[in-house]
Amino acid sequence: MMLSYATSQSGAISSLSSGQYSTVYNVLSLAIASLLFTALYLLLSQRQVAPRYRNAIVVSAIVCGIAAYHYFRIFANFQESYPAGATIDAAHVLSNVEFNEGYRYVDWFLTVPLLLVETVAVLALSRAASQRLLVRLVPAAALMIVLGYPGELTLETGPRVIWGVLSTLPFLYLLYVLFVGLTKALEGKSPQVRAQISNLRWILLASWGVYPIAYAFPLIGGDFFSGAGGFVLRQTGYSIADIVAKALFGILIYRLARTQSREEDP
Amino acid sequence: MMLSYATSQSGAISSLSSGQYSTVYNVLSLAIASLLFTALYLLLSQRQVAPRYRNAIVVSAIVCGIAAYHYFRIFANFQESYPAGATIDAAHVLSNVEFNEGYRYVDWFLTVPLLLVETVAVLALSRAASQRLLVRLVPAAALMIVLGYPGELTLETGPRVIWGVLSTLPFLYLLYVLFVGLTKALEGKSPQVRAQISNLRWILLASWGVYPIAYAFPLIGGDFFSGAGGFVLRQTGYSIADIVAKALFGILIYRLARTQSREEDP
Amino acid sequence: MMLSYATSQSGAISSLSSGQYSTVYNVLSLAIASLLFTALYLLLSQRQVAPRYRNAIVVSAIVCGIAAYHYFRIFANFQESYPAGATIDAAHVLSNVEFNEGYRYVDWFLTVPLLLVETVAVLALSRAASQRLLVRLVPAAALMIVLGYPGELTLETGPRVIWGVLSTLPFLYLLYVLFVGLTKALEGKSPQVRAQISNLRWILLASWGVYPIAYAFPLIGGDFFSGAGGFVLRQTGYSIADIVAKALFGILIYRLARTQSREEDP
Amino acid sequence: MMLSYATSQSGAISSLSSGQYSTVYNVLSLAIASLLFTALYLLLSQRQVAPRYRNAIVVSAIVCGIAAYHYFRIFANFQESYPAGATIDAAHVLSNVEFNEGYRYVDWFLTVPLLLVETVAVLALSRAASQRLLVRLVPAAALMIVLGYPGELTLETGPRVIWGVLSTLPFLYLLYVLFVGLTKALEGKSPQVRAQISNLRWILLASWGVYPIAYAFPLIGGDFFSGAGGFVLRQTGYSIADIVAKALFGILIYRLARTQSREEDP
Amino acid sequence: MMLSYATSQSGAISSLSSGQYSTVYNVLSLAIASLLFTALYLLLSQRQVAPRYRNAIVVSAIVCGIAAYHYFRIFANFQESYPAGATIDAAHVLSNVEFNEGYRYVDWFLTVPLLLVETVAVLALSRAASQRLLVRLVPAAALMIVLGYPGELTLETGPRVIWGVLSTLPFLYLLYVLFVGLTKALEGKSPQVRAQISNLRWILLASWGVYPIAYAFPLIGGDFFSGAGGFVLRQTGYSIADIVAKALFGILIYRLARTQSREEDP
Ligand SMILES: CC1=C(/C=C/C(C)=C/C=C/C(C)=C/C=O)C(C)(C)CCC1
Ligand SMILES: CC1=C(/C=C/C(C)=C/C=C/C(C)=C/C=O)C(C)(C)CCC1
Ligand SMILES: CC1=C(/C=C/C(C)=C/C=C/C(C)=C/C=O)C(C)(C)CCC1
Ligand SMILES: CC1=C(/C=C/C(C)=C/C=C/C(C)=C/C=O)C(C)(C)CCC1
Ligand SMILES: CC1=C(/C=C/C(C)=C/C=C/C(C)=C/C=O)C(C)(C)CCC1
Ligand code: NA
Ligand code: NA
Ligand code: NA
Ligand code: NA
Ligand code: NA
Ligand code: NA
Ligand code: NA
Ligand code: NA
Ligand code: NA
Ligand code: NA
Repeated sequence: MMLSYATSQSGAISSLSSGQYSTVYNVLSLAIASLLFTALYLLLSQRQVAPRYRNAIVVSAIVCGIAAYHYFRIFANFQESYPAGATIDAAHVLSNVEFNEGYRYVDWFLTVPLLLVETVAVLALSRAASQRLLVRLVPAAALMIVLGYPGELTLETGPRVIWGVLSTLPFLYLLYVLFVGLTKALEGKSPQVRAQISNLRWILLASWGVYPIAYAFPLIGGDFFSGAGGFVLRQTGYSIADIVAKALFGILIYRLARTQSREEDP
Repeated sequence: MMLSYATSQSGAISSLSSGQYSTVYNVLSLAIASLLFTALYLLLSQRQVAPRYRNAIVVSAIVCGIAAYHYFRIFANFQESYPAGATIDAAHVLSNVEFNEGYRYVDWFLTVPLLLVETVAVLALSRAASQRLLVRLVPAAALMIVLGYPGELTLETGPRVIWGVLSTLPFLYLLYVLFVGLTKALEGKSPQVRAQISNLRWILLASWGVYPIAYAFPLIGGDFFSGAGGFVLRQTGYSIADIVAKALFGILIYRLARTQSREEDP
Repeated sequence: MMLSYATSQSGAISSLSSGQYSTVYNVLSLAIASLLFTALYLLLSQRQVAPRYRNAIVVSAIVCGIAAYHYFRIFANFQESYPAGATIDAAHVLSNVEFNEGYRYVDWFLTVPLLLVETVAVLALSRAASQRLLVRLVPAAALMIVLGYPGELTLETGPRVIWGVLSTLPFLYLLYVLFVGLTKALEGKSPQVRAQISNLRWILLASWGVYPIAYAFPLIGGDFFSGAGGFVLRQTGYSIADIVAKALFGILIYRLARTQSREEDP
Repeated sequence: MMLSYATSQSGAISSLSSGQYSTVYNVLSLAIASLLFTALYLLLSQRQVAPRYRNAIVVSAIVCGIAAYHYFRIFANFQESYPAGATIDAAHVLSNVEFNEGYRYVDWFLTVPLLLVETVAVLALSRAASQRLLVRLVPAAALMIVLGYPGELTLETGPRVIWGVLSTLPFLYLLYVLFVGLTKALEGKSPQVRAQISNLRWILLASWGVYPIAYAFPLIGGDFFSGAGGFVLRQTGYSIADIVAKALFGILIYRLARTQSREEDP
Repeated sequence: MMLSYATSQSGAISSLSSGQYSTVYNVLSLAIASLLFTALYLLLSQRQVAPRYRNAIVVSAIVCGIAAYHYFRIFANFQESYPAGATIDAAHVLSNVEFNEGYRYVDWFLTVPLLLVETVAVLALSRAASQRLLVRLVPAAALMIVLGYPGELTLETGPRVIWGVLSTLPFLYLLYVLFVGLTKALEGKSPQVRAQISNLRWILLASWGVYPIAYAFPLIGGDFFSGAGGFVLRQTGYSIADIVAKALFGILIYRLARTQSREEDP
């Protein structure tokens, strides 16, 4: 793993234009602010939902907090990797410190399972039904991230494709289990709750789908997908996907919990 | 977007006198302290209002918190962009790190919609009426910020005017919807509450109006509006407008919530 | 304003002995610790007083928090302005970064009105009586600070005296209103409460009086009042006055609130 | 002690490949995020268990917090000890700042006794029975750490073995007392609680066992165990063991407390 | 005062061996972690004691918090004063930044009176009896610290002895008042409470006694007490005494409060 890691460095983007740098910089800053303050908002609103939903809200807040922490690190790392040039308009040339994509995988390794935990928790299924879902979802999620990581470290087409495909298997399984589970959960719910759950489902699909697509970019090649432009596109895409999949998703979870709390105890 | 961004650099202020630097420095510091501690005050006072108003208070606190966070960044960025000269009285000459106005737009993108959310929340309308207002106000606000950003990045008159005008359209729509909404909300309220809501309305108009005016400064030209003096004027104007539109406004929201809480449950 | 500001630099102290530096350093550190932990203590003790007094305690905590924040800044600024010499015993010579007295004025601009708010709040007067006091006290306090600032920025005798006198007018008015108000508030209170309020009054007078006196130092001239020794004296004086006027005063406010809470609901 | 300490420096790893550096870096970052957010999660969930179990949860949170704090220090120390080379792919050569293993011992000295406290607390034994266990476990734990430290500071086989053996004596005693205690605690519990306690027991054994094994690595010698590769292995092993023994263990403690709370007051 | 302060510099330790540096470094780190997390633990446990004891717990937490804050400062100061040499094993030679013992005195000036406040508070005497004790103890404590400080700043035997003796007078008075007070407080308490109070008394005596002894070290002279070894010994002694007198003492206060809470409301 360590050797292939070193090899991957040759693929590092060697320079960003001043405008490209600013775009990534502002998007990372947006991600920090969105995630950090969604975490705070969820914590502060915990009491507004019935006790049985509070764990879902706390886990959502923790997910946003973990991500905000990692974005702080990514932001500092980005500044160190691409320092300012001699003038404001000069390109930002890669320093001797790599831009570490490892942070994102560390983040996903912790937050993807927790996102599944918060989703299952808000459905307020029986303890047994929740357990049945989680013992399938959580290991699949962990496996998906672990299998994707070695592929991310190399830019050679062969291994990148293989690890990508291997990682996609638990991904599809996970989506299947989740969608079946969510569909079952719709039974016996009020129309408003059904609409909100179905909403959740589409948001989840749309945002989670971004990650494997961004992973495939360097395989496509060409300046747009794999040069400096591709780097900007990937960082922007990941950041927006993270805001949607964690912050916006967390707020939707909270609203679903509130709707259900009100229905149960008007 | 990235190209026009780089172009904009030519418009960066190349030097501030020591006194100009200190003025901006002290104003930014005032903004940090005002926003940070208003956020804390609102959080600590949340329990003093009836439960139905708590979301308005929490959102107001979050708005001030997000802004305080961005002012910390702006402050650090300002120090890096205009480092001290060789002596205390020497001019502060622009370094190789631009002063990034992007932070303000990231901030507005998050806080302007939230300011509308907190305003609607404190009126305690029916859920349906709130929804009707927000589905109009929030997208208009987001659109206004997004359309204004490209104009901010250029100093050429043409595009700056065009984007400015485009951004003004949702701004006017938003003001119209908000004022109609606030006027309707006055119905059936006590005189004291009516006075406070009308107060809110004028504060909002006065502070929000500052932003498009400051945006237009560089169009006017002349040393006063677009040189170093104009820079100081714009930063001071933005900062004071932010303190009024977020911190002072948040405290007024809190007082309105308290008045209503007392009236409903004396 | 900016011009006179630059002029003031000529009055900056150009060097501190190692011992003078250590004295200011330790006093600033004492101020940080006192203010920060008094803020925490007040927050943590909020529940020990009756609900009607909680706002007074929260505002006292906010005042100490704002001041602690500014002392952190002042401390860092002090270290940057007077860096260590070549050896431990060498003088600390002024660097190219001025020691910014502006922080103190930003602080006072926020905390002096709030100190009046907390004082009025703890008296638990009728809402109308409180309002009557505050609409006089708060603008007078703001005016006093704003009028004193330009005088602080110059070392020329003429303007320093004029602004000083102008600032003293609202100061005297404010003291008059406050003392009449506090005297009226004594009516109908228990002996213990009367003693505590009268205590508050003297502490306030003694600590607030330090500020205009320190302001007048450079007018007196001589090595003791306006050289490096005068600088140490002024920083020490301001810091101790701040600890008394905010931290000690906040604790007395808290004790008064407790006494009254106990008397009302034994 | 100080002399043998200096001697130990000769054993410091003089260089890490870029990939080795990244691996340790990412693992330390994973440890920070896991421990910090488990601490927060436990604090936020404290109210979900019956009052008699809250001390166990608070202590678990404190343990994770202490460890997170130390990992922040270790992380910063690691970056200072092995700075980036001239290029991204270059080796990270040891600077003049040693990588201080002392942090881990300081951490263990505080957290190992506390882990025993939280374990005993969650069993909700009689006060007397708890006391009887703790007066044996806590001193044994402290002794184990104190005796292991001098051995860690030397790479000479002789003293390393001797101190290691001396430290193992209280370790075995501690495990014995704990297992007897846990076995007794199983009496009269429901099957679900019994399963969870037995689970705890195995997790504890598996994770605590890692530490003496890693301690023995340098005794084995060879590139795999004592060179740069061994360093990576040891840091990774310690970090994962810490995540399991503190974060995962804390969550299991929390779940056990919840199960028992529910059984006692359904 | 300032002159004698500068003079004291000649007594600064000019170099520490690498091992000596590490020992002080690890002990300071232990102090930070112990004090910071004891503060958090006490805050989080506040609700576990009856309301009348909460002030004692809050004050104990504040004491540990203030001390943790000062240890952060001392730690940073230590790193700046004794930077790493050219190699890991090289001596750490004193830089141009002195190691400021002033922090400890600032700390004691705040925490010693508060330790007395928390001790009296936990006894839950009548308000009058508490007042009687505190008006004697607090001024004596402040006087003791203030009189000891000038002696600490000089290494000349004469003044060091004189100030030391002067400072010892209030120290003895304070101990006398406290012991008489604690002995009286034993009356009418249960055996368990009596044992705990008597425990407190011995811990206090043992830890407070360390400070004057460490103060006397340089008077003894010789390499062991006043050279680099003496420096290590003094820093270690102070740190351990602080952990015992604040963190351990705070936990004993908490346990005493719990015991009494349980006895009063079983
Ligand atoms: C399928 C697949 C992947 C999927 C990643 C996913 C689905 C990540 C989701 C992340 C989230 C939801 C983060 C936080 O909100 C990888 C690992 C890129 C590797 C290529 C194949
Ligand atoms: C109309 C208009 C603008 C309006 C900006 C506004 C109205 C911003 C409000 C910000 C607030 C309220 C911030 C925080 O309190 C822009 C974007 C400058 C571009 C030019 C046209
Ligand atoms: C009359 C007068 C002044 C008064 C200042 C005062 C009264 C400041 C109070 C500050 C407090 C109370 C701070 C925080 O606790 C100035 C501005 C120095 C200018 C000269 C004339
Ligand atoms: C027996 C033994 C040791 C045991 C260490 C242990 C058991 C550490 C446990 C640490 C934990 C549980 C940390 C935090 O979770 C040492 C000191 C390495 C020295 C060699 C012999
Ligand atoms: C008698 C005496 C002293 C006593 C100091 C003491 C008693 C300090 C206690 C500190 C505590 C308890 C700190 C925090 O826990 C000095 C000043 C060294 C000067 C010499 C004479
Ligand atoms: Na640039
Ligand atoms: Na990487
Ligand atoms: Na300057
Ligand atoms: Na910009
Ligand atoms: Na010095
Ligand atoms: Na200034
Ligand atoms: Na590298
Ligand atoms: Na070491
Ligand atoms: Na060293
Ligand atoms: Na000193």
